[in-house]
Amino acid sequence: MSKGEETRQAILSRAFELATVVGVSGLSIGRLAEEMGLSKSGLFAHFGSKEALEVAVVEEASRQFVQEVMVPALRHPRGEPRLRALFDGWSAWGQRPGGCFFVSASTGLDDLPGPPRDALSRAIKDWIDELAKAVRIAISERHFRPDVDPEQVAFEMYSIMLGMHTFYRFLREPTTLDRARQAFDRLLAASRAASPRSR
Amino acid sequence: MSKGEETRQAILSRAFELATVVGVSGLSIGRLAEEMGLSKSGLFAHFGSKEALEVAVVEEASRQFVQEVMVPALRHPRGEPRLRALFDGWSAWGQRPGGCFFVSASTGLDDLPGPPRDALSRAIKDWIDELAKAVRIAISERHFRPDVDPEQVAFEMYSIMLGMHTFYRFLREPTTLDRARQAFDRLLAASRAASPRSR
Repeated sequence: MSKGEETRQAILSRAFELATVVGVSGLSIGRLAEEMGLSKSGLFAHFGSKEALEVAVVEEASRQFVQEVMVPALRHPRGEPRLRALFDGWSAWGQRPGGCFFVSASTGLDDLPGPPRDALSRAIKDWIDELAKAVRIAISERHFRPDVDPEQVAFEMYSIMLGMHTFYRFLREPTTLDRARQAFDRLLAASRAASPRSR
Repeated sequence: MSKGEETRQAILSRAFELATVVGVSGLSIGRLAEEMGLSKSGLFAHFGSKEALEVAVVEEASRQFVQEVMVPALRHPRGEPRLRALFDGWSAWGQRPGGCFFVSASTGLDDLPGPPRDALSRAIKDWIDELAKAVRIAISERHFRPDVDPEQVAFEMYSIMLGMHTFYRFLREPTTLDRARQAFDRLLAASRAASPRSR
């Protein structure tokens, strides 16, 4: 990496950490520049605009999510084991300080049309597609019944993770992880093929 | 109502509308005062502080939620029909402009300890307790199996509603309401007593 790329990456890493707590739209250029020992214009030189920085932060979050959640899951066997690995990795991601970046960011950007919202919406849809794809593989591996609806399972997995976010982060409910696990187990059980060789 | 109470209620109604969109912590006293034709100090005279206003807004939201969702559900027969009515009313509440007040507010107040966050947490817990109570009634009416865990069903119902919020409001996914309904139906089916007379 060139010096300029290194600085850009360092800004992004810090901006991503901050955005997890204050939301993408809550990022303060002034605070970020100060923390990085840059002037505001020095910081802008790397991104061009606050909006472009916000888009870059969403892309940085996606990059980290792929590294931390998706890549490790691919090492697990296709089908239900991989779907479980995706759920477990995602659950660990959601327990980081500040919680899940994407959940926090989506509420903040709900009513702010523009490139940052579009980038975030794309990132969340890609993840939901990835979940649906893992369900499709579980069907083709005959772990799941052929009539299981992959998009429906993806919707329900996403819902459980949102529930986990609210109960764990906001309500500070100590039983949360167990509840989320039970809900996911029930979803898997309802999707599973009946045949004993299916597991 | 006295004139003072009327003004206070009018401020709260407008503050509640605004907070649904911008979040409780995003309420601007200046904007609110201007819209109500009051000075900032005139507005403060009714609440004492921004924090007290925020708490009052959460209480106003709870009052409206009880009126719009809980009271109508009580007219339905005890057990599964009432639980369905709670889900349907809640679903309609979440489709209002700005979406569900409580969902939007909880993300904004996540990392802001203080009385507004406490009030919101209490309001959400009260609602989850209400759902668990409705499940307990469904068990005692023998619509649901005796081994159903009311808190678990409440967690899963809340998760489905959060999924609905994100897919409907943020992702603008046209199949959302149908997906949420399917998820809820599956939850009911998994909870139902086996006996044919149970419905």
